[in-house]
Amino acid sequence: MEESRSPEQRKADALAKLHATHADVWVASSSADGVAHLVPLSFAWDGEHLVLATEPDALTTRNILAAGRARLGLGGTRDVVMIDAVLARTVPAADAGDVADGYAAQADWDPRSAGGDFVFTLLRPERIQVWREVNEIAGRTIMRRGRWTV
Amino acid sequence: MEESRSPEQRKADALAKLHATHADVWVASSSADGVAHLVPLSFAWDGEHLVLATEPDALTTRNILAAGRARLGLGGTRDVVMIDAVLARTVPAADAGDVADGYAAQADWDPRSAGGDFVFTLLRPERIQVWREVNEIAGRTIMRRGRWTV
Repeated sequence: MEESRSPEQRKADALAKLHATHADVWVASSSADGVAHLVPLSFAWDGEHLVLATEPDALTTRNILAAGRARLGLGGTRDVVMIDAVLARTVPAADAGDVADGYAAQADWDPRSAGGDFVFTLLRPERIQVWREVNEIAGRTIMRRGRWTV
Repeated sequence: MEESRSPEQRKADALAKLHATHADVWVASSSADGVAHLVPLSFAWDGEHLVLATEPDALTTRNILAAGRARLGLGGTRDVVMIDAVLARTVPAADAGDVADGYAAQADWDPRSAGGDFVFTLLRPERIQVWREVNEIAGRTIMRRGRWTV
């Protein structure tokens, strides 16, 4: 097991994962009646929001619109950045301008030219937890109520 | 992008991931009022059930008991085995016998000697989907209603 990281190092590592190009995030959402959904998706980070691109009728889109939230896992199972996020807004791909440009640059995939109908979902992190193994469970929370604790 | 795998190959790859030692699974569950939870956990596979070991008051335990189901992601975001599973039963760690032995052997961690209070949750897959990238979305379902399609 590696040594436990400092809060500062965990924040730096989380930001590195948020800025990674051509990466995916595990997106957990739930229907109103409590059926969990999980799917890996491309994403971008605009400095404030984690940005997803999905089809309007996809389960993930409908769940996040209804619940107003999602839980997102970045990285591997033993090098996790876990994000509880709330829905900020959605924008149809065709109207997304800078959001779409930023997404295409980071995700290396442009929903505007993918054919089909896509919507961008902007999620604002409220809590971010960063851990690798058991020795990093303590001190794993580096954002609370939307504010970095470090 | 690699070539699309045959259904037989996908099943073989899924079984290899289910039998992997010292591995983790992403577990998505939901509260009754539709708040999704997600966490990586050690697991074992007994040939019929995916076995988790959690503390009784953990959110994952309570969600799965209430909903009777979970969605589980094995592997990486671009080499996924996605499992929709229903709760078969739970067993307190101290009474788990063979289940506990099998878990300890595969997970390389024994909840019985970990201190604290653990319960095993046995989840029976109903649907299993296996894909790497876009070219494998078609044909990704290799188990439906609890039966292998291949």
